[in-house]
Amino acid sequence: MAYGITVRRRVEFSETDMVRIVHFSNYFRYIEFAEAAFFRSIGLSIVKCGVGWPRVHAEFDYKKPLRFEDEIEIALLVRERRPRSLLYAISIRKIEGDQATEVARGELIVACVTRDPESGEMTAVAIPDAIAALIEPAPQETLEELMRTPPAA
Amino acid sequence: MAYGITVRRRVEFSETDMVRIVHFSNYFRYIEFAEAAFFRSIGLSIVKCGVGWPRVHAEFDYKKPLRFEDEIEIALLVRERRPRSLLYAISIRKIEGDQATEVARGELIVACVTRDPESGEMTAVAIPDAIAALIEPAPQETLEELMRTPPAA
Amino acid sequence: MAYGITVRRRVEFSETDMVRIVHFSNYFRYIEFAEAAFFRSIGLSIVKCGVGWPRVHAEFDYKKPLRFEDEIEIALLVRERRPRSLLYAISIRKIEGDQATEVARGELIVACVTRDPESGEMTAVAIPDAIAALIEPAPQETLEELMRTPPAA
Amino acid sequence: MAYGITVRRRVEFSETDMVRIVHFSNYFRYIEFAEAAFFRSIGLSIVKCGVGWPRVHAEFDYKKPLRFEDEIEIALLVRERRPRSLLYAISIRKIEGDQATEVARGELIVACVTRDPESGEMTAVAIPDAIAALIEPAPQETLEELMRTPPAA
Repeated sequence: MAYGITVRRRVEFSETDMVRIVHFSNYFRYIEFAEAAFFRSIGLSIVKCGVGWPRVHAEFDYKKPLRFEDEIEIALLVRERRPRSLLYAISIRKIEGDQATEVARGELIVACVTRDPESGEMTAVAIPDAIAALIEPAPQETLEELMRTPPAA
Repeated sequence: MAYGITVRRRVEFSETDMVRIVHFSNYFRYIEFAEAAFFRSIGLSIVKCGVGWPRVHAEFDYKKPLRFEDEIEIALLVRERRPRSLLYAISIRKIEGDQATEVARGELIVACVTRDPESGEMTAVAIPDAIAALIEPAPQETLEELMRTPPAA
Repeated sequence: MAYGITVRRRVEFSETDMVRIVHFSNYFRYIEFAEAAFFRSIGLSIVKCGVGWPRVHAEFDYKKPLRFEDEIEIALLVRERRPRSLLYAISIRKIEGDQATEVARGELIVACVTRDPESGEMTAVAIPDAIAALIEPAPQETLEELMRTPPAA
Repeated sequence: MAYGITVRRRVEFSETDMVRIVHFSNYFRYIEFAEAAFFRSIGLSIVKCGVGWPRVHAEFDYKKPLRFEDEIEIALLVRERRPRSLLYAISIRKIEGDQATEVARGELIVACVTRDPESGEMTAVAIPDAIAALIEPAPQETLEELMRTPPAA
């Protein structure tokens, strides 16, 4: 059973925009970077586990900008495991030495679906037992700790 | 005075992902496509109007997928013009003939800032009068109409 | 029969990078914007015409930068229609009033393939007659005119 | 003195397209991933070294597709260090166990420039001695080895 993961990466040049900061749309790609690693950590590939996970809700609060070559940490926690969907809480932090400053906090809800191989039509289904057995919601105190991270001033 | 804009575009190949639908991060780029057009419609360029507009909150609810070559309409409305920020409501619809089906609904909050030319540091400031005079919140009934759009089943 | 197309668009914010110019990788996406329009102009969709068109070679020479909100014109010409591939010549120009300045010149070679629906494996095949009948190489003088465009100083 | 670098990464979901393979434009972003690491390996940041490096030519030959979660290796070698530009040879390989299969081979030429801080105008300049002293062309045999890599059948 796992309830989350923390991964690191470095901001890439193509992720910046003309204001010299990471384009806000790329934070949503950072989530997927963590989500794919989370699935691998429980022995699955997010695209080859028998079901699909379309995004039904995504949001971010942006607190401080990120810049090229910043080292960042993406923490993804399962806040809720519902019968047919997962709700993730996400925190993105900038790493400087042994200091981590939260720069954005987000949320992602993904539905569990099957897809018609011909038409691509998606049908909402219950998360298969074999997968549900590997994923648990994060403990309340872990979530609270995530939330307690003092917001960047 | 203007309170919104509706623009059209067609889904591009590079916007799709391996599930054969538009990657969810690209909806946030669609917002900016509409926002830049909104600023041009009031005679401004969003990057050359004396202040910057960093994104402080962004979210989408995804209802139906978009696919390559779909014709889409992005409606952006000013829901609130606060002293130091703007809150936009966004609706993305798929156009088929004279039918428009809402596929996603979103929100974007942008702060008004000045930037230190050296350091890039941003400072929140009041929206300059010259700009505030050009932007008004959308009438309640227009917003309600946007919100009333029957969600895609 | 058609041998090319010229399309226009405006540089989007998310296409810029921290040097305040369009990121060089996005020029390759501009090509596809023109290519998809070219296929539609002959009554086809590039993804629903019975064969696939993987890119086997792509290149650009960059002459002048593009910036946010620049109006651009992408000219795509079929330079060669080979039995199993198409070679396109591309010119990207910045439009100012009735002036067009070439900012980049490129080339794209696409192979004609079928794909195994299960494995996704691709097999090179001859361009189907029904498609080949719609596409012809651009006349030599049209290509020369493209090439003669005085390079940006 | 350094003449190249080899870096690894894993294909991300947002890098794929509806054909279920990595979109060809993203290979050019992979180059920059390696290039930024190369500069860091000689103690520099590519964006804070006193000069700029606009791309003047970029190309790729694509041999085999890449798919989500493939592990890849990007080898970047300095083929030529000219007075005012650098020419890189690039090989992208897919890693499976201890097997590396070249999937694409490319080239990037970057010019050395200074930028007017006001206008952003770029002027070609000689590579500063302090930087030139850190970069050397790859030995002929290293380049030949790169080139000898048997092309994927």
